[in-house]
Amino acid sequence: MTTDTAAAGARTDDERERLTAMQGLAALSLDALSSVAYGPEAILVVLVTAGAAGLDYTLPVTAAICVLLTALVLSYRQVIAAFPSGGGAYAVSKAHLGTMASLIAAASLFVDYILNAAVGVSAGIEAITAAYPSLYGASTWLCLGALALITALNLWGVSESAKVFTVPTVLFIAAMAAVIFGGLFRGHPAVAVDTHFGSATEAVGVLLVLKAFASGCSALTGVEAIANAVPQFRKPRERRAQHTEVWLGILLGSMLIGLGILIHKFHVVPHSATTVLAQLTEASVGHNLLYFAIQWITFVLLALAANTSFGGMPVLAALLARDNFLPHMFGLRADRQVHRYGVVVLAVFAGALLAASGGDTQKLVPLFAVGVFIGFTLSQLGMVRHWHQEQTPGYRSRMAINALGGILTFCTTIIELVSKFTEGAWLIVLIIPGLVFLFMGVHRSYARIGALLQLGQTPPPPQAQQSLVVVPVGGLSRLTAEGINTALSLGDEVVAVTVCFADPDDTAADVSFRDQWDQWHPDVPLITLRSVHRSLSKPIVQYLCDLERSDKYHRLVVLIPEVQPSSLWQYVLHNQRGVILDRAIRRRTLNVVLCRLRYRLDQLAPRE
Amino acid sequence: MTTDTAAAGARTDDERERLTAMQGLAALSLDALSSVAYGPEAILVVLVTAGAAGLDYTLPVTAAICVLLTALVLSYRQVIAAFPSGGGAYAVSKAHLGTMASLIAAASLFVDYILNAAVGVSAGIEAITAAYPSLYGASTWLCLGALALITALNLWGVSESAKVFTVPTVLFIAAMAAVIFGGLFRGHPAVAVDTHFGSATEAVGVLLVLKAFASGCSALTGVEAIANAVPQFRKPRERRAQHTEVWLGILLGSMLIGLGILIHKFHVVPHSATTVLAQLTEASVGHNLLYFAIQWITFVLLALAANTSFGGMPVLAALLARDNFLPHMFGLRADRQVHRYGVVVLAVFAGALLAASGGDTQKLVPLFAVGVFIGFTLSQLGMVRHWHQEQTPGYRSRMAINALGGILTFCTTIIELVSKFTEGAWLIVLIIPGLVFLFMGVHRSYARIGALLQLGQTPPPPQAQQSLVVVPVGGLSRLTAEGINTALSLGDEVVAVTVCFADPDDTAADVSFRDQWDQWHPDVPLITLRSVHRSLSKPIVQYLCDLERSDKYHRLVVLIPEVQPSSLWQYVLHNQRGVILDRAIRRRTLNVVLCRLRYRLDQLAPRE
Repeated sequence: MTTDTAAAGARTDDERERLTAMQGLAALSLDALSSVAYGPEAILVVLVTAGAAGLDYTLPVTAAICVLLTALVLSYRQVIAAFPSGGGAYAVSKAHLGTMASLIAAASLFVDYILNAAVGVSAGIEAITAAYPSLYGASTWLCLGALALITALNLWGVSESAKVFTVPTVLFIAAMAAVIFGGLFRGHPAVAVDTHFGSATEAVGVLLVLKAFASGCSALTGVEAIANAVPQFRKPRERRAQHTEVWLGILLGSMLIGLGILIHKFHVVPHSATTVLAQLTEASVGHNLLYFAIQWITFVLLALAANTSFGGMPVLAALLARDNFLPHMFGLRADRQVHRYGVVVLAVFAGALLAASGGDTQKLVPLFAVGVFIGFTLSQLGMVRHWHQEQTPGYRSRMAINALGGILTFCTTIIELVSKFTEGAWLIVLIIPGLVFLFMGVHRSYARIGALLQLGQTPPPPQAQQSLVVVPVGGLSRLTAEGINTALSLGDEVVAVTVCFADPDDTAADVSFRDQWDQWHPDVPLITLRSVHRSLSKPIVQYLCDLERSDKYHRLVVLIPEVQPSSLWQYVLHNQRGVILDRAIRRRTLNVVLCRLRYRLDQLAPRE
Repeated sequence: MTTDTAAAGARTDDERERLTAMQGLAALSLDALSSVAYGPEAILVVLVTAGAAGLDYTLPVTAAICVLLTALVLSYRQVIAAFPSGGGAYAVSKAHLGTMASLIAAASLFVDYILNAAVGVSAGIEAITAAYPSLYGASTWLCLGALALITALNLWGVSESAKVFTVPTVLFIAAMAAVIFGGLFRGHPAVAVDTHFGSATEAVGVLLVLKAFASGCSALTGVEAIANAVPQFRKPRERRAQHTEVWLGILLGSMLIGLGILIHKFHVVPHSATTVLAQLTEASVGHNLLYFAIQWITFVLLALAANTSFGGMPVLAALLARDNFLPHMFGLRADRQVHRYGVVVLAVFAGALLAASGGDTQKLVPLFAVGVFIGFTLSQLGMVRHWHQEQTPGYRSRMAINALGGILTFCTTIIELVSKFTEGAWLIVLIIPGLVFLFMGVHRSYARIGALLQLGQTPPPPQAQQSLVVVPVGGLSRLTAEGINTALSLGDEVVAVTVCFADPDDTAADVSFRDQWDQWHPDVPLITLRSVHRSLSKPIVQYLCDLERSDKYHRLVVLIPEVQPSSLWQYVLHNQRGVILDRAIRRRTLNVVLCRLRYRLDQLAPRE
């Protein structure tokens, strides 16, 4: 699921570096193709509740999904032509349907990114536990471990190009071809399939078939990826991208049909400890090295599919932050050029989903497809508006195609919502509006703050004001001298303050400090603040508040001289007073300027 | 275990608020008396390994411990006379044995405080699990929970007076009297005692008896508390304190002998799921309401004994911090007048001990007594030096008493170390020198830093220097205006810098910002720094480093204007840039003064 946003990350200037149609297919189809690892199983899980009679509907439902796939591919060919700079749901909605629709698209994309990461990881781990059943009990921990690994790699900042995905995708296509053709030309399964299923709990009805269809639509997630990545193709970009989209549709459709036929032929039923794809692989190629290789390839491809969320979601978050719909920190990059906050938020939510579902993909699938299809629908609606505005020759037939696509995806969205409402879709119904409210709330806050700060307006000309610099000191030293020096360089007036606790030892120390001070004769008054409660910060804050209230000085500056620790050891020995004072002053006083003069010991040493 | 240090915390000016001898006994004996809850059991645990023949030595060992108790009481009577301001091991060693001995005393006190907290909690919870056996499995968690509660109360800052301890101590003395007299006047145990023990694994030998003696000495922890708290007594302080010390000795000795006789009479043997004291209580008063009440009283007293560590150790840490032997942060008090760092360090180590021992008191006892007896020995040695220097009339006999006490406690220390070396005492042998090294290391570091900073010396007279204030800005707003205003008030020269990322959108934004700036005409140059890697902080840090290297300005100041968040929501929306810049500048540049001008939105709103 690469969207409009991922394109920006992999932009390259050299034409030869860009993708041909075949390279694009290998590089950009992994999201869509990897969903065959859980899509067909999602159909079976629903149908098996109606027993053998239900399972007979596997092929018709798969066929219906392929019809929908055809409509999507035709629609997205047109999206590619209309939005050559990348036409994700957010971009199309923003251009043609207004802010609110674009926020809904963004919210559903957010949900999708998170679910894509979770589903990719859980389905990948299921491919592994199917091959090594002894690991099955540790599924949740394996999922969280894999997610943590992917997160760490993304925080570390892997420089990635779409091309690194080519080899795993080609291997996966070859593996699926081996499974499908191996199965088709085999009279009996290579390994006996456990065709036992529980007694039917439901009758075959329209609702059940629709539900199976809705579940199976999870196999269509990712078909929008190519439309989002048009700028990555070689010229003529649009044509190449369109060819790729068609090829993706043909490949995905063939796999779905092929696997559907095999399921029917070998009477495969879903079991909790293994996957449908693993059973089909065993039946087609046998329980041998090839079988294990195919499971590992599936795992790698699904993990890479999960990884695309980490490429896309932080970039989308950064775009929203730039438009003031998310806190600006999502737009900041860390030293390693990673949108750290976006990566962490994605990992936290995906981890929560994995933990809550126990790493069971089929529990996550009901949530997944809803968001994807909301995005599909908004894209198609936006395209209808697009053709309506353009009115280029032949726009009517193009508008009709997108309208048909829009109606089909809209109907599918409704089927998803209704048939899977109690299985988790209700969560999406709560979360997407919730996210939209969040985006709008952030936007309102920034607007209010911008108005308060008169952002972009020309302020009155600046002028220098009378300033008083207050320097908290504790004894005479180079640090103190440096502080007073700096204060004198900065302020019109300077005053040093020292805190004296109410006990005899401290009072004596204060008297001797005052003597030393007078001896130094820095022409700066030293004010002693008494503290009954042995608190350092309270009397200083009180003093500052009094000064502030007196309104005598226009600029009140506190300069805290402190030793800059050059090691953890020095950090433990020092620096606490500065932090405590800083925090207390910030919390209690109004417009004090806080300066911290950090004096480096390692720099001092050679000078002396 | 209240030491010299606890006295400072509870100092009071009103004489009537101070303690009489009887009040002092009630208030200050709880540490010593509560140790009868685990001391006698510690003897039995060792002797039972030699079977019935071993158990016959219970009374002789108890008698030997009482002889040592007598010597300690006599010695401490003299400490009270010599150190009326409180004569803990640290104070006495510091006065008479030099820095090294005082640091050893401090280290052993640290270890004691931690073990006292751990043993108090674990023995207290054992009193509860003895009464409610179903809780036995959760011992460790109950211990950690109780420790967390005590820690939280201490962080919260309970204002405590020694007098609040009076009622529980009196109740505990009454309870022990009921157990001892009830048992003595009873022909047969009220409840049958389980006298079964495993087969003997060792023969009765000198080493075994010495080991039992060493273990039983844990019952003597706390007899130094009164000598530490002399200033809390009413006048004549020394006499009252001396009386109290004698009475403490008589009470503790009677309890130990009384319980020893009962153990012998009822043939009590240690069992893991219950305590020896609980078995004696059952045998003497029966399994009734009184039994449960006594267990609860024991628990409360032991919890209070653990709590005294939280009063003493942070104050000792603060004293050491004042003498530069610990980081100064241990001397800082939080807003609630608590030495927060000391409390947390104590809780962490006590918690680790409880977790490692699984809440089993008898695993902690071997570590406990060693530290206590090192303190005893150093106190007595210090007293010998004291009398030697003073040479007041009759000093020879006094010196002899302290010398005898010193020899006995020294021998006990050696017995403890040798006989319990493999059971945990080796840890103490590592930790106490380790702590002394730590103290000395901290002291050396402070001395080195003090020399570098020329602490206490009179620096050259201060003088104002040419200053340049650099203000990072991102756009025109009131915040920017305020920043430039402030910079003009502070610096001789002011320059504004803005960072421009290398993409078309940002370049366009930069051009329009520059136009606005020229329109504003603030008489401050605006410098655009280009950033290839979309990093905000790198180009600014680079610019500052260049300025610093050019050496043109004597005072380089960076002023970061930022919005001061007034709520968590605002905090999320803002303030990240300031933090990131602050951190980057602090890490990379040398002597830049960092000023953060925090602008309050809530204050802005009404003004406009």
